[in-house]
Amino acid sequence: MPKIESFLKKHKLSVGERVRVETVNGSVVGTVIPSARGFLDLKLDSGYNAGIETRKIKSVKKLGKEKSIGKPVARKVEPDSSLPIVSIVHTGGTVASRVNYKTGGVIAGFDVEDIVSMYPELSKVASIRSVFVENIMSEDITFRHYQKIGRAIKKEVEEGAGGVIVTHGTDTLHYTAAALSFAFEKLPVPVILVGSQRSSDRPSSDAGMNLVCAARFIAQSDFAGVALCMHSTSSDSRCSILPGTRARKMHSSRRDAFKAINSKPIAEVDYGSGEITFTGADYPRESSLKECVLKDKFEPRVGILKARPNMFPEEFDFYRNNGFRGLILEATGIGHMPINTRENAGNKKALKNLIDSGCIVCVTTQCIYGRVHETIYTNTRNLKSLGAIFLQDMTSETAFIKLAWLLGNFDKKKAAELMSKNLRGEISERRLVGEFEPRP
Amino acid sequence: MPKIESFLKKHKLSVGERVRVETVNGSVVGTVIPSARGFLDLKLDSGYNAGIETRKIKSVKKLGKEKSIGKPVARKVEPDSSLPIVSIVHTGGTVASRVNYKTGGVIAGFDVEDIVSMYPELSKVASIRSVFVENIMSEDITFRHYQKIGRAIKKEVEEGAGGVIVTHGTDTLHYTAAALSFAFEKLPVPVILVGSQRSSDRPSSDAGMNLVCAARFIAQSDFAGVALCMHSTSSDSRCSILPGTRARKMHSSRRDAFKAINSKPIAEVDYGSGEITFTGADYPRESSLKECVLKDKFEPRVGILKARPNMFPEEFDFYRNNGFRGLILEATGIGHMPINTRENAGNKKALKNLIDSGCIVCVTTQCIYGRVHETIYTNTRNLKSLGAIFLQDMTSETAFIKLAWLLGNFDKKKAAELMSKNLRGEISERRLVGEFEPRP
Repeated sequence: MPKIESFLKKHKLSVGERVRVETVNGSVVGTVIPSARGFLDLKLDSGYNAGIETRKIKSVKKLGKEKSIGKPVARKVEPDSSLPIVSIVHTGGTVASRVNYKTGGVIAGFDVEDIVSMYPELSKVASIRSVFVENIMSEDITFRHYQKIGRAIKKEVEEGAGGVIVTHGTDTLHYTAAALSFAFEKLPVPVILVGSQRSSDRPSSDAGMNLVCAARFIAQSDFAGVALCMHSTSSDSRCSILPGTRARKMHSSRRDAFKAINSKPIAEVDYGSGEITFTGADYPRESSLKECVLKDKFEPRVGILKARPNMFPEEFDFYRNNGFRGLILEATGIGHMPINTRENAGNKKALKNLIDSGCIVCVTTQCIYGRVHETIYTNTRNLKSLGAIFLQDMTSETAFIKLAWLLGNFDKKKAAELMSKNLRGEISERRLVGEFEPRP
Repeated sequence: MPKIESFLKKHKLSVGERVRVETVNGSVVGTVIPSARGFLDLKLDSGYNAGIETRKIKSVKKLGKEKSIGKPVARKVEPDSSLPIVSIVHTGGTVASRVNYKTGGVIAGFDVEDIVSMYPELSKVASIRSVFVENIMSEDITFRHYQKIGRAIKKEVEEGAGGVIVTHGTDTLHYTAAALSFAFEKLPVPVILVGSQRSSDRPSSDAGMNLVCAARFIAQSDFAGVALCMHSTSSDSRCSILPGTRARKMHSSRRDAFKAINSKPIAEVDYGSGEITFTGADYPRESSLKECVLKDKFEPRVGILKARPNMFPEEFDFYRNNGFRGLILEATGIGHMPINTRENAGNKKALKNLIDSGCIVCVTTQCIYGRVHETIYTNTRNLKSLGAIFLQDMTSETAFIKLAWLLGNFDKKKAAELMSKNLRGEISERRLVGEFEPRP
């Protein structure tokens, strides 16, 4: 296979150049990005990449250097005082990023002012304010960012915002949503986290629709609390409002990646008509008391350990040796860990030592959907008898955040007690007679 | 709230007793199981449990001691020599368990002979042999069990079995399916893993239908390789045949818990009519060469580490300090780890040290669905530049098993090279021009 460098040289092409390529299979238009051996990689106008085998290329026509698509033109938007005030708190992520034509990668790019001016529809729905907190891709967010974001939200609410939109990368959007859900013990307005799976300068970007639907939901509903607003389907028709402690990114690239786990969405927002349909899920309501109570400490030494075949006692010892105060066991099935046979007795002993050392150990399921049960099997009873706390139908990600938050703000006894209590809709309590809970 | 002991004493009730309870909400029949304070817990005939608040109970009528439901009566089944030979290899799990009325829990119980005699329908489909390998709940299965199961299958095939059914607990069924998929470099017949989400002595058990559908699929299709056979929906209508390297338990309790990830099922088996419908997914076929090649070593020192906010360098150092030869990073989104900011520089250094020490580090997504991409974002390029191997659309569980298998049977260089190659249908290769791959 020919080296791509010699191909580029032969055709006098460079990265960032716009071309029309004729292949044996047809014609493709796009921008040259760094390419693998034997392929010419193009960024298409649709936002997709295409790798074209150079041996199938019949001709290449140059169309000039790429102009950044959709680059925002700053526009002054006059605030409309009859509309509710919505503050956009900017933290970064793809919702505020664009393609780097030098590398073909995606970089965080826009200012928050740019975003607002890119979507003039927003200003018809609400009187938009904007606040810059951070410009970070969400995979690198840590607990101290939760504090910064929480405090920025509190300030906006206290200064009169009727609701807040938080723009955020999608990778850990659900972790941040859970963190804000717990951190605000009282929150009189809606705080809606919005991400995007396609960068804002792409025609296929979902950023605008997610932002507009979030603003509409804030303006029109009586919801107060933390939720996400993301595409319901892969088309640009509806957004789902997902509960802040029940959401999870369930696909690495689809625009409808976020799903409510063990719960319904709170509502659906129709992008075309603006109509909001509540699904019947319970949700916290706005109150006349406009008070914000923010408890924003998070204990850093909390981990997640996923169960799997062939575990080692050292894997449990690690958390004891490194002073972890909390651990979420992502168990198999209904809440099992490999601790029940003679072969796995070392795991059981190490886990017991960890719990006895004072670490709060909780159990969720790696199945994602469904709940853990502590009493069904002899083996789940074994695990419970060591002192592990079963978290019913809470997701692992929410459990991790909740445990860090509880240990940051309460003493250990209280934290352990509150872990299995429903505080922000993160647990559906075991149902009683008349609503039987399925068991094997 | 009254203590349950005093309630039981007052009504002269004991665990295992069958009762009719009149409550303010109506009447419930079931068997008394150990109960929480303030509740009378009953195991209902449907297999569900009900917790009844004692203060709502109006009267309790005793109906006598529980008789074990569906206890098998051993029957001699005459083999039909015109039918294909199907061997059932028994490893344990709920498919072979029943309720312990002493504790209300579930214990592994049946002999494999019992299972066959419980489902006489099996003997109309195939000439059934049975082999006992183990009686273990699957959460405690380790790599040495994969060897035992693999060798038992090989023996059955070499002795003329036209197919093998492996009964197995559901918790790690998909890990074992992946292990057998890789371990058999050549497998001339179908090996179908079957589990059950409800114990076999329950009227609601899914064990019988899953077994019968597996036997039908073996008898009627030209598939050769490893797959799972489990309920397609929560009703008793159809089973799905799921690829051995693409399945995942996606619900802790539903009977249709297993789903194909980033793939279609191979086929659907209609329980009523016995009809098999292929979905168009590619699958390995039976060949006239009846040769089994089994490579059944697995490297024990392989781990899984799930990315999350607020990780510590020590979490990466652990694998280096404990001689791990392989690690699967369950990254966020499209393949991100918290290594890109100054705050997370320690994680990056520790991860680099781990890879430089000789550990093979691979990247999957915790989203479950979708694929990781190494070139889209600057941050995924950062991770790749450290030497991490991106595993496209492979599940984390299959990746873990594959890495342990490769390191058990090949040298490190070959193992690293094969990790990102499709060996058993575990990877869909990146698509080329004409089938564009979505990117942000």
